[in-house]
Amino acid sequence: MDRYLVKPNSKIDLKAISSDHYKGYQGTKEQAMELTKIMNLELDKLQKIQNAEKKHKILIIFQGLDASGKDGAIRNVFGSVNPSGVYVAHFGAPTTTELSYDFLWRIHKKVPSKGEIVIFNRSHYEDVLIVRVQNLMPENIWRNRFEHINNFEKMLADEDTIILKFYLHISKEEQRTRLQSRVDNPEKHWKIDPQDFKDREKWDEYIEAYNDVLKFTSTEYAPWFVIPSDKKWYRDLIITSILTDKLRKMKMKYPSSKYDYTGYVVK
Amino acid sequence: MDRYLVKPNSKIDLKAISSDHYKGYQGTKEQAMELTKIMNLELDKLQKIQNAEKKHKILIIFQGLDASGKDGAIRNVFGSVNPSGVYVAHFGAPTTTELSYDFLWRIHKKVPSKGEIVIFNRSHYEDVLIVRVQNLMPENIWRNRFEHINNFEKMLADEDTIILKFYLHISKEEQRTRLQSRVDNPEKHWKIDPQDFKDREKWDEYIEAYNDVLKFTSTEYAPWFVIPSDKKWYRDLIITSILTDKLRKMKMKYPSSKYDYTGYVVK
Repeated sequence: MDRYLVKPNSKIDLKAISSDHYKGYQGTKEQAMELTKIMNLELDKLQKIQNAEKKHKILIIFQGLDASGKDGAIRNVFGSVNPSGVYVAHFGAPTTTELSYDFLWRIHKKVPSKGEIVIFNRSHYEDVLIVRVQNLMPENIWRNRFEHINNFEKMLADEDTIILKFYLHISKEEQRTRLQSRVDNPEKHWKIDPQDFKDREKWDEYIEAYNDVLKFTSTEYAPWFVIPSDKKWYRDLIITSILTDKLRKMKMKYPSSKYDYTGYVVK
Repeated sequence: MDRYLVKPNSKIDLKAISSDHYKGYQGTKEQAMELTKIMNLELDKLQKIQNAEKKHKILIIFQGLDASGKDGAIRNVFGSVNPSGVYVAHFGAPTTTELSYDFLWRIHKKVPSKGEIVIFNRSHYEDVLIVRVQNLMPENIWRNRFEHINNFEKMLADEDTIILKFYLHISKEEQRTRLQSRVDNPEKHWKIDPQDFKDREKWDEYIEAYNDVLKFTSTEYAPWFVIPSDKKWYRDLIITSILTDKLRKMKMKYPSSKYDYTGYVVK
């Protein structure tokens, strides 16, 4: 899975990275979907232990351009996990109230507690992405935020939080197809946001901003993975694999009872 | 006022610092109280401008041993300020829910928004004080927190937060008098907490923990002040002076109207 890991401080050029599935992958689409489903069930079992153990907090961050598949990936990776142990936090445009606080205020409120998986659908990274591309703040403000973000994530990690960050990588052509299908398909009309078409015109600037995000904020304690996402089935397979692998290695186990009721017979 | 400022990275030995009022002070107790009252009213005016301007966030942190006068100081310094613009957050022993998150989670939720003064009566510093003295966490955990605290406060400062931190410094003898008066005065019985008497036995360890707090976390962007607090009137005078001075220097002003109604006559 290291193929998709961004090493700390490595220079990233997303335009040189394939957004299609790895040609070395031996299976078919159907086999990938089947394997993903099997791992989904394992994820559910692992989360059940995490919830019982109440030791680790798990934070999964999803970022990507419009139509890169964040909603779909979250559904397909976590759809089999007990909803009691998983919480999805969506970060849209900040409200007036949120804007009157520091940029991490609304984020920090939603981080996971012990035994919980929290998924961020967009996140504090928007404050160095959209804020940068749309010139919402002067450069010195958003540039400082890379360090503030790393410090914040380091603090969370030191307080028993496992952090994984997924950038869903699609090609400009794949985005075109998906946005067009929203226009053509009445059941997808509700998803249309004229801003997406405007943002598409700034494709290159967004990619450049993402290059910096990946370069400056992929750390040992909160690594980024660039997930090839033109094929949804491949995207789901890779994310589920990385996540399951990580949770397996945590060697979680059910705690023993706090009480000694060995052999007690309930009458 | 620099007399009471802790310079960044300076070694502090609280036992060598007087907790009584500065002998060079020329006025009487009555004059000090009168002056404090005048500055209280100025604080109210300055806060009114801060509130109109909606530019700065102001965070005031109070720390000190039991009976050092945190409640009294907050009342006497901020009692004349419009309650709409001031919010006092008390941080007692963390709840089970709070303990299931990182140590800054409950703190971050209470930081000030634009135009607001927030006062912390105890704070995240308890997580490197009581946690240390009572051995609630291993040393490597709380030691790392000095850096996490500095990073957190730096982030707040970069997001337009003015931070001032007051350590209320009393002598061991003054604490004895005050705790005894709680025992002797029926109207103060409700304040008695047996833990205070136990903590008093660990006086030296608390002072040592405070020495480290002052040394490691007094920064340009979030300075500590050691306030001589054996005399309540002197304590209030100094805190009010430092605060008023700081707010004056911010050169806040009422914003002009967003609309041009110059000379408009309301009929």
